[in-house]
Amino acid sequence: MSLWNQARRSARLNPSIIREILKVTEKPGVLSMAGGLPSADTFPVEAIRAACDRVLTDAPQQALQYSSSEGFAPLREWVAAHLAAQGMTLTPDQVLITTGSQQGLDLVAKVMVDPGAPVAVETPTYLGALQAFNPFEPIYASLAGDGEGPLPESITALPHDAPGTRFAYLLPNFQNPTGRVIGAARRDALVAAAQAARVPLIEDNPYGDLWFDTPPPAPLASRWPEGVIYLGSFSKVLTPGFRLGYLVAPPALYPKLLQAKQAADLHTPGFNQRVVHEVIKNGFLDHHVPTIRARYQRQCQAMAQALQRHMPEGTEWQMPQGGMFFWLRLPAGCDALALLPKAVDAGIAYVPGSAFFAPQPGHGPGGGADARTLRLSFVTLTPEDIAEGVAQLGRVLREHLATQAEAAP
Amino acid sequence: MSLWNQARRSARLNPSIIREILKVTEKPGVLSMAGGLPSADTFPVEAIRAACDRVLTDAPQQALQYSSSEGFAPLREWVAAHLAAQGMTLTPDQVLITTGSQQGLDLVAKVMVDPGAPVAVETPTYLGALQAFNPFEPIYASLAGDGEGPLPESITALPHDAPGTRFAYLLPNFQNPTGRVIGAARRDALVAAAQAARVPLIEDNPYGDLWFDTPPPAPLASRWPEGVIYLGSFSKVLTPGFRLGYLVAPPALYPKLLQAKQAADLHTPGFNQRVVHEVIKNGFLDHHVPTIRARYQRQCQAMAQALQRHMPEGTEWQMPQGGMFFWLRLPAGCDALALLPKAVDAGIAYVPGSAFFAPQPGHGPGGGADARTLRLSFVTLTPEDIAEGVAQLGRVLREHLATQAEAAP
Repeated sequence: MSLWNQARRSARLNPSIIREILKVTEKPGVLSMAGGLPSADTFPVEAIRAACDRVLTDAPQQALQYSSSEGFAPLREWVAAHLAAQGMTLTPDQVLITTGSQQGLDLVAKVMVDPGAPVAVETPTYLGALQAFNPFEPIYASLAGDGEGPLPESITALPHDAPGTRFAYLLPNFQNPTGRVIGAARRDALVAAAQAARVPLIEDNPYGDLWFDTPPPAPLASRWPEGVIYLGSFSKVLTPGFRLGYLVAPPALYPKLLQAKQAADLHTPGFNQRVVHEVIKNGFLDHHVPTIRARYQRQCQAMAQALQRHMPEGTEWQMPQGGMFFWLRLPAGCDALALLPKAVDAGIAYVPGSAFFAPQPGHGPGGGADARTLRLSFVTLTPEDIAEGVAQLGRVLREHLATQAEAAP
Repeated sequence: MSLWNQARRSARLNPSIIREILKVTEKPGVLSMAGGLPSADTFPVEAIRAACDRVLTDAPQQALQYSSSEGFAPLREWVAAHLAAQGMTLTPDQVLITTGSQQGLDLVAKVMVDPGAPVAVETPTYLGALQAFNPFEPIYASLAGDGEGPLPESITALPHDAPGTRFAYLLPNFQNPTGRVIGAARRDALVAAAQAARVPLIEDNPYGDLWFDTPPPAPLASRWPEGVIYLGSFSKVLTPGFRLGYLVAPPALYPKLLQAKQAADLHTPGFNQRVVHEVIKNGFLDHHVPTIRARYQRQCQAMAQALQRHMPEGTEWQMPQGGMFFWLRLPAGCDALALLPKAVDAGIAYVPGSAFFAPQPGHGPGGGADARTLRLSFVTLTPEDIAEGVAQLGRVLREHLATQAEAAP
């Protein structure tokens, strides 16, 4: 008998494929398009330095003491006003500051997911959400989708037997990994289907501010305030190193999420909350975020040109309208996971798409995944390195396809 | 049918009695001895300011970017060296940086506790640990104890049937709430009993550095490295507002705790880790912690004198040898929870002891608790306010006892 008897859910805790890959690609000289990181060049170091100094001058004892589990009140007010301007109806009392929006996913699953309960996710979906939900042992229902997002009829078809599907997890803006944005009409239809099926929605929006030419439509939560938990983050518009996110919950559910938050880490670092509030309170993001958009749009265009030039015939992608990622579907006969070692040998890295598909009953991890897909980030390399990296990727693919053609009968 | 169907564990998420009480006592003018907070006067504001500046000069992009789930390598090395100096045998690879040591409790329970599994806790025990464990639906086994800590035979008597008691949670140094320290001989006996019963130990040590005249004995983990998870914190020696703690786990269990950490919040804020490492890396705590000890010892002596002078006959307490708390047992006929409103009316606050007793099968929260107990913190009031607060407490108790005597037949 083992000394350390583990909980059954522990079997669902497994290493992140992405993180294991990233370790391999941290070798110097690798042009990595694998990361989910924002560009470190966008971090407003001097504004953060000034804010740290200001907080430690104005309120040192409060910033360094224990504080409330709900979060720093002025920051909650800022979040509420920011989201109200995007069409949401909410009060600051509904805002819970979290230790990154990843924690919001953990808290939601802790409060809502019993072992064996159905949870609906997109196909593909954000890997970190699967990691957060997995230990609570849901059964995943994979929503069918097209280039505009999940299909409303796939929500209608979810299991209805009491207590029904616990929630559908959606990432409407510049999704990780596909980059697609859900349009206004599809949002209306999805919300109508969810209301009819009485399936609550978890709306995750880390990338919504990173649009290029047009802001995305209003949040799902603006269409159905009592049926949506909204998750937001400062990681992509300021810094991920402060681990600062938030959730907005209907009043019916807020107290349980708050208690789960207290149990998880008492509260998000008060110093970090005050520093971020100090940075943003006078409209800093209004001029900072456009600089990030412009930078990412240039990098996105560089990648689009390189893909056009270097990808073998039969490769498919959509042009992103914002965010950080291209999602590629390779020609028949290409398996992105199997090709990754060759890519790393050629000095580049990407994330195989199979990592982003929910495990299905009867399959292992990534079962039912589309093996021809992969994710490329365009935000951490210069346009020149993007051109070089994509050219290398094209070379690896062409060589593989040529070998295949030779081997054919 | 409710729209938001919650998990069964959600019924075990309930408001913290302490936090609800603290809200009442946040009125200006209340002399609160209720808090579990360190003294804000001990926070090294200037050292933290200099460290923020240094980190943002030397490594701004690394500090503000996503970082590893394990934690900042130099901080993990510091922790390993710090604990090795206290007699523990470990490598930095066994150190996991957590978002406060509260998160360590959450991660341990997530990985080890199935619904209905036995978990052993002291009588009384740290309320925050019960809050962290509760949502994972353990059955609590309350360990019998005396003034020197839990009794080894109470470990021997724990449920043995496979898979057995998942762990015993112990807080050996200046326990919250009782303030008692477990001596070396009792530590040996407890570890021997746990080894024989094959019950792993969770050793929580937030207060160990806050000794007055004599350091506490070496950690339980130094006696049984493969059978103990050790939890530590920077909250009481530097600042709780950075939410920085750590755990040390045997190699057999570390990977699962790491994966639970990734799922929970990806990583603890990298900026906070680097700032704290910058503050402590050259021996800062060697001269800072003694100033905290001296301050707390003066406050402890002031409270001891005031208790001696003002408590009615029949009140019992032990003199703390460190930490932050006195634990009182009131005379027969006094119920600390029932008396709290009178105390607040008199301008003081404490935490009723019942909050710290694990719920027992067949009882509600606090079932089986000793209603005559209460916890007093001596670290957040000046010696003068301690004298005044304890005098008021004595008055409330004497009035209550006088009323009782009158009512007697």
